[in-house]
Amino acid sequence: MASAKTQPARGMRDFLPEDVRKREFVIGVIKEVYQRYGFEPLETPAVENIETLMGKYGEEGNQLIFKILKRGVHEGTGEADLALRYDLTVPLARVVAEYREKLPKFFKRYQIQPVWRADRPARGRFREFYQCDVDVVGTESVIAEVELCSAVSEVLETLGFHDFTIRINHRKVLGGMLKYVGVSQNEQSSFLTILDKLDKIGADAVELELAKKGFQGDLVGELLQYLVFAQDNAQRSQHAIGELHKIANFMNDGSPDRAQGQWQLAQIESLASHTPAHKYLRFDPSLARGLSYYTGTMFEISVRDLSGSLGGGGRYDNLVGMFGGREIPACGFSLGLERILVVMNERGMFSTDTIKGPADIMVALWSENDRGNSLALAMQLRARGIRVDLYPEPDKLGKQFGFASSRQIPLVAVLGTEELLRDEVKLKDLRSGEQRSVKSKFVSDEVLQLIKGDK
Amino acid sequence: MASAKTQPARGMRDFLPEDVRKREFVIGVIKEVYQRYGFEPLETPAVENIETLMGKYGEEGNQLIFKILKRGVHEGTGEADLALRYDLTVPLARVVAEYREKLPKFFKRYQIQPVWRADRPARGRFREFYQCDVDVVGTESVIAEVELCSAVSEVLETLGFHDFTIRINHRKVLGGMLKYVGVSQNEQSSFLTILDKLDKIGADAVELELAKKGFQGDLVGELLQYLVFAQDNAQRSQHAIGELHKIANFMNDGSPDRAQGQWQLAQIESLASHTPAHKYLRFDPSLARGLSYYTGTMFEISVRDLSGSLGGGGRYDNLVGMFGGREIPACGFSLGLERILVVMNERGMFSTDTIKGPADIMVALWSENDRGNSLALAMQLRARGIRVDLYPEPDKLGKQFGFASSRQIPLVAVLGTEELLRDEVKLKDLRSGEQRSVKSKFVSDEVLQLIKGDK
Repeated sequence: MASAKTQPARGMRDFLPEDVRKREFVIGVIKEVYQRYGFEPLETPAVENIETLMGKYGEEGNQLIFKILKRGVHEGTGEADLALRYDLTVPLARVVAEYREKLPKFFKRYQIQPVWRADRPARGRFREFYQCDVDVVGTESVIAEVELCSAVSEVLETLGFHDFTIRINHRKVLGGMLKYVGVSQNEQSSFLTILDKLDKIGADAVELELAKKGFQGDLVGELLQYLVFAQDNAQRSQHAIGELHKIANFMNDGSPDRAQGQWQLAQIESLASHTPAHKYLRFDPSLARGLSYYTGTMFEISVRDLSGSLGGGGRYDNLVGMFGGREIPACGFSLGLERILVVMNERGMFSTDTIKGPADIMVALWSENDRGNSLALAMQLRARGIRVDLYPEPDKLGKQFGFASSRQIPLVAVLGTEELLRDEVKLKDLRSGEQRSVKSKFVSDEVLQLIKGDK
Repeated sequence: MASAKTQPARGMRDFLPEDVRKREFVIGVIKEVYQRYGFEPLETPAVENIETLMGKYGEEGNQLIFKILKRGVHEGTGEADLALRYDLTVPLARVVAEYREKLPKFFKRYQIQPVWRADRPARGRFREFYQCDVDVVGTESVIAEVELCSAVSEVLETLGFHDFTIRINHRKVLGGMLKYVGVSQNEQSSFLTILDKLDKIGADAVELELAKKGFQGDLVGELLQYLVFAQDNAQRSQHAIGELHKIANFMNDGSPDRAQGQWQLAQIESLASHTPAHKYLRFDPSLARGLSYYTGTMFEISVRDLSGSLGGGGRYDNLVGMFGGREIPACGFSLGLERILVVMNERGMFSTDTIKGPADIMVALWSENDRGNSLALAMQLRARGIRVDLYPEPDKLGKQFGFASSRQIPLVAVLGTEELLRDEVKLKDLRSGEQRSVKSKFVSDEVLQLIKGDK
């Protein structure tokens, strides 16, 4: 038969065992921490009705959605009725609207699933990637914000990150400043989309783009200058959130919204002092976030050696209402699994303590006639929780040892003719090269000792 | 805004927290057992190039594949270039062909991921469902078969199943019989597709369908009669695989293939005696399996209270070659997660011991001013590994207790004015109704005691 193309589809990846083990380790840490904070798991289908997704992610988003052809006789029409999940927030909003009566009043959920975007693939940008979302639905209390920041900080600390920052801002504080410099409510979203590029394209380019859209004048210039300074400050200082009070009177439009935003940020700062989030939080009045659905706090997590963020989020009190007619407040965080993995790999943050190899021991096969004995030995070890590979063919022993060694399996057990006669098992430790014979009935204990010593 | 449709797409399901916890429990058991047998995890993309899938699953399969529209300007043409994963075997074959050099010579992998089929949804039949596959690639040794049956038996036993059977047959034994009664090599697949329906539509209907295709005569009748008897026997008897020798001379075409099949079954029976699979294995010469790619052993697992199987598999020594030109022997098993869950739910096999609720304890919020203290208490408990929910609003205490109780959270901690003055925490056990005050520094120990006592 002719050989077919065997690569995965463009922008998609196969994960071989070592990749999966790393991914599952990170996901395991995320789940464990989120569960300790009382978050519950949710899963939604990979495929949604196309109307559920279209129009939720802006014009660019619509184009990046993978669309699925109608089946059967409709296939010829080219009509699409389904689409692949594009993020985990819109499905959450749909679920909350659909199961409102079954869900608790305060619904704290995490969701760790892949999403698909027909983006042009690039280094670190894939068409299938995992999002790790955590959201609190049903309360306006800033306890939601504080617990989210705390949980995310614990996740990153547990993974071994200690140099990240969680930049925080408030849409209403930023909105008050914009109003003060003459940007109307309707123009805010357009202004913020440009401002969001500040750390990517720099202040001059942002000023130019703003001017093109008609945002100019002394006040706009002054605001921009301030935001550049504040962003820089947020990235350098130790506890920039403590500087919060300094902006209370800066470009204050005097609106209740601005006051509320300022007050909420202050409360978050104060409550966060009880949590590990406190040392990572930085107030950054320039933080705009691209998405227009944020209504309150906004967050972004970064580390110095990764351009772009490890994750971000904020409060979106109007999104759920889109599906139910009824507004339900919500606040959430999304961590990017692929980016966390990129940094952890580059920094060498995975150790053999955290990522175990394929097996603790391999049982070699002495001869075709010894299959029963070798299998029985493997079963005896497995019954004690030991991860055992069994070599399936009676190859030369050297070849069998080579196989174990190339796969980083630390131990090999051999049941040769002599060992069988003496009711013994020969154990070889491939790490030290040492080998010894052990009475059959003690072999599990011996193996447990040897692999425990390794940890 | 107008309210939108909030159900999941047709044939797809949302999994609320309790569902996810059950699914993850079962998946966790499967992974743990497979890892103990030295199987390694593999993950492939949900989306494959359409050529990778088309033509691999027969005419019916082609129609059930979800196809994805080309993006951008191509969208209008209705052309599809991608498709959703339809099973986990074809992606495995592609991966083995693509990464042959990086993978171990004997590649033992498990893969637990969703697949999508545009089937008409029905009770227990979904358009998105999980498969749990486990395969050994690279050896013809029957050790592969024995370890697969053993691992699958341990998975089911660990989940609490003790009444299943693993029916086993061999394509070459069945092929020898067919040849003996006059079915040519080319006609075998057509004959087997009909025979596969034996336990669904019965012997008379099978005979009629066979006759329509021209398969008739005394020998065909005799074979069918024998297979009905043998199937019945396999379902009743305790160790039907022990009856294997009895068929050695039954309708034997004298071919080396038939002899090899018979010999391999006998070896599997003998080796399986070292494993838990032994008591579940039943030789069923009528087992045909629908898929035409099996070349040797075939398996099917069933329990009495589920029509259809919990899983199945077999040896397919030619499939991997489809992608690489080079044939590589392989043998595998696929468990159906949804069917396992259906039976476990119907039989009440999930207990509160295995499926934990959303949190071990809820910290109530006495007043707006106590947010800091309550948060600090929650953090203190979480630091000890306790899963803690924190009520975010200062509602009446009765309402807060009701919230915890409705979510099956067993404990509530209250930090009221009095407790604060005495440096105490009030703990209420909602299961017994008991409550007591505990000194702050002992509260974590006390909570750990209370939730351990529960387990």
